Amino acid sequence: MTLYIDLANMISSRIEQGLYRPGDRLPSVRALSVEHGVSLSTVQQAYRHLEDQGMATPRPKSGYFVPPSRQKPELPMVNRAAQRPLDVSQWDNVLELISIPPGSPVLQLGRGMPDISSPTLKPLLRSISRLSRRQSVIELSYGCINGDPALREQISRLMLDSGCQIPAEDIVTTTGCHEALSAAIGATCKPGDVIAVDSPSFHGVMQALKGFGMKALELPTDPLTGISLEALELALEQWPIKAIQLTPTCNNPLGYIMPDANKRALLELAQRYDVAIIEDDVYGELAYSYPRPRTIKSYDEDGRVLLCSSFSKTLAPGLRIGWIAPGRYLQKILHLKYIGTGMAAQLPQLALAEYIAAGHYEPHLRRMRSQYARNRDLMTNWVSRYFPPGTRVSQPDGGFMLWIELDRQFDSQRLNRALLPHAIQIAPGSIFSATGKYRNCLRLNYATKATAEIEDAVRKVGETVAQLLASPD
Amino acid sequence: MTLYIDLANMISSRIEQGLYRPGDRLPSVRALSVEHGVSLSTVQQAYRHLEDQGMATPRPKSGYFVPPSRQKPELPMVNRAAQRPLDVSQWDNVLELISIPPGSPVLQLGRGMPDISSPTLKPLLRSISRLSRRQSVIELSYGCINGDPALREQISRLMLDSGCQIPAEDIVTTTGCHEALSAAIGATCKPGDVIAVDSPSFHGVMQALKGFGMKALELPTDPLTGISLEALELALEQWPIKAIQLTPTCNNPLGYIMPDANKRALLELAQRYDVAIIEDDVYGELAYSYPRPRTIKSYDEDGRVLLCSSFSKTLAPGLRIGWIAPGRYLQKILHLKYIGTGMAAQLPQLALAEYIAAGHYEPHLRRMRSQYARNRDLMTNWVSRYFPPGTRVSQPDGGFMLWIELDRQFDSQRLNRALLPHAIQIAPGSIFSATGKYRNCLRLNYATKATAEIEDAVRKVGETVAQLLASPD
Ligand SMILES: Cc1ncc(COP(=O)(O)O)c(C=O)c1O
Ligand SMILES: Cc1ncc(COP(=O)(O)O)c(C=O)c1O
Repeated sequence: MTLYIDLANMISSRIEQGLYRPGDRLPSVRALSVEHGVSLSTVQQAYRHLEDQGMATPRPKSGYFVPPSRQKPELPMVNRAAQRPLDVSQWDNVLELISIPPGSPVLQLGRGMPDISSPTLKPLLRSISRLSRRQSVIELSYGCINGDPALREQISRLMLDSGCQIPAEDIVTTTGCHEALSAAIGATCKPGDVIAVDSPSFHGVMQALKGFGMKALELPTDPLTGISLEALELALEQWPIKAIQLTPTCNNPLGYIMPDANKRALLELAQRYDVAIIEDDVYGELAYSYPRPRTIKSYDEDGRVLLCSSFSKTLAPGLRIGWIAPGRYLQKILHLKYIGTGMAAQLPQLALAEYIAAGHYEPHLRRMRSQYARNRDLMTNWVSRYFPPGTRVSQPDGGFMLWIELDRQFDSQRLNRALLPHAIQIAPGSIFSATGKYRNCLRLNYATKATAEIEDAVRKVGETVAQLLASPD
Repeated sequence: MTLYIDLANMISSRIEQGLYRPGDRLPSVRALSVEHGVSLSTVQQAYRHLEDQGMATPRPKSGYFVPPSRQKPELPMVNRAAQRPLDVSQWDNVLELISIPPGSPVLQLGRGMPDISSPTLKPLLRSISRLSRRQSVIELSYGCINGDPALREQISRLMLDSGCQIPAEDIVTTTGCHEALSAAIGATCKPGDVIAVDSPSFHGVMQALKGFGMKALELPTDPLTGISLEALELALEQWPIKAIQLTPTCNNPLGYIMPDANKRALLELAQRYDVAIIEDDVYGELAYSYPRPRTIKSYDEDGRVLLCSSFSKTLAPGLRIGWIAPGRYLQKILHLKYIGTGMAAQLPQLALAEYIAAGHYEPHLRRMRSQYARNRDLMTNWVSRYFPPGTRVSQPDGGFMLWIELDRQFDSQRLNRALLPHAIQIAPGSIFSATGKYRNCLRLNYATKATAEIEDAVRKVGETVAQLLASPD
């Protein structure tokens, strides 16, 4: 990363920490140059960068100031809906989101796509390219049902960072986290069973419950700390819950990281009521803090946690390689994998194993984490600036998604229709609920490099929101 | 292909056609040299090749003769087991088969692997290699849920050869035929439902029924014409069957091609009793006859046939790209695909679309078909020669599998254990049944180039069979 970006990040994190408040004068160019031993022009570049991001305002002859609007917008409210198990609906709106082919001119602010343009992906693509050319039986065959052994070794090593000691034999690779999640649900629950979920919650899981004919019990979820443990305990008392499914680390869509104490407490509840935990960690390595947070799985003692993840968010979803560490459900998972897909593709597994073993993955993650952290600030800023007053916004601690809550009457599906002529698509909040709650919410993706085009799109979304609020139909 | 192989094939097809009978003298070297305008040494090479294949025997000073044992071995018997719906078992034996990693020293005569060493695969691998390097959003993204449009166009075009006019919009790509089949079963049946199947039948489907908690009704199946229509009709009268699942073209494991009239009659039965047909066509393009046989789907009028297939047998299973033409079940299939895997990998889809569009697929198929047809003759010969008298053998019309039936007391799982020290694995017959019937049968793969190593292995299997038959435990 270049020097001026480092410096800009340092200044913005001081602003974040409250060392400089809205309206405060920021240090002079000369002072920073002396303090950090960098040239005046580097400092000027850093300030221009902060200015572009809306984090510093120049005043002629007096230097740079923290802009007045730097207060964070308010957080989304905790969902208070009636707590009872419900059948899942909302497929049509998910289908709309996933039917757009890649490369379409629509600006897809709605999908869970990471930025795949980073040069740190190059060694992976080189591996795929090289391995594919050698026409070896290993890449072209059916693999072993558990998945490529070399890749499972690397995943086992990566999981140490989240506090998990899981041998490669206890890991199964899958076709994306989708397959991991649906196998986990299939291994722990039967049709008609009740599963407790965080809410809002990933639509892939909602739809799996629908497909399997299971019922979702949506629990109140705090936008900073996650699923309510009190509500969960009450629910466990009241309903015949078979599994708890949640995304506790860099949640989709809310972006929070559940505190360690809560993760431990949740595991204890699961032990006490003897239910399985299906932990989705697909964004876990994209936490902005270092070292990465622990998983619930890392506290697991009796194999009741099924950890599901993939390289879709950290590298690229087109690879379709995920994994599951299914604890005591290993045999069941192997059977479900065999039924569902036979095996995962060999070539990307082998290339991933090489890429990680050669040490390319960590630098890539570092780069993406800091890009996404910066983009969060930018996107938050743009939303504060371009959306109507009163807009509530999540404060993600990882990942690349912002959750936006509008006036209770607002309809984000109507918003999507209104955005059609502008070739912009957002994710309507309703798909993150079993029954179409959160219609007044939406999710925005801030993964890719923050360009003027994206700022324009956010402005356009904000303006359209304002128009719709002014003309309820 | 080299000249002498062409010549050898010509001679062996004359033998097959009965122009030369067992014991007949074959044309002299000189006569063939004149007839075909090739050198004497080419003819000699051709005869040595036929000799290696056991299709010609030299007699000193008198030339080459058709060996006396050229009669075909007897066919396997039609299964006569009690016809009632049964729960599926046999997972452990399947697991054993699919747990061996590729590249292991075990000679896997049991698995459904095509030969992936053909130079006609090179253009596909070059496409993968080139596409992976360009780091474009198209390969690395989530694709559209239906699958890559260009590949679906090509599949639609290929399906014309089997008499199907199906537009690309009605085709969905999948992660292998496994996903196509399990989605087809999920879309047409519920847990507890009864599905009629051919028998013996692909273990992937058997295990899917087990996983979904459905019951298999195994129907008597003729080794030359397939599922018995009389038995099917009786079964439809008697049981609440929801779907018929079968592999009518180049069946696995029996290799027959169901006659067109039977395919039409089966469809009529399905219409009359209003049940769905799940047609597995994964080996359909590997029929030895040209043009390829029609599918049941090609006669479908009301969208009740779900055609499932993949490039796993024609190209390489490691690609994990299959498809389904689900007729009236399209929406259900899209939902099940979304739940199961999210999407299929983009890169292999794009490379396949290029490969087919550039005209590489047809020549590849032609080459593989003639290799597999030759190998069938060789393998049949080896089995006749090295297995005990009374061994019954299928007569495949396509694909690359031989089904072998031994004395009723024989146990092919015991055979596999006895073959362990020789590092050879066969597919025990029991996994092709819901309940472990066909223990006295086994399946051999004859896809790869017929080498002395493989002949040795077949001899070893035959000898071990004889030993086990001599010492029942
Ligand atoms: C929380 C969560 N889990 C799982 C997935 C699916 O991941 P994959 O693309 O690896 O199937 C997503 C992506 O949308 C997600 O947001
Ligand atoms: C009849 C049949 N159908 C389907 C399959 C599975 O195909 P795929 O590897 O594309 O999932 C096989 C392979 O074993 C098979 O023999």
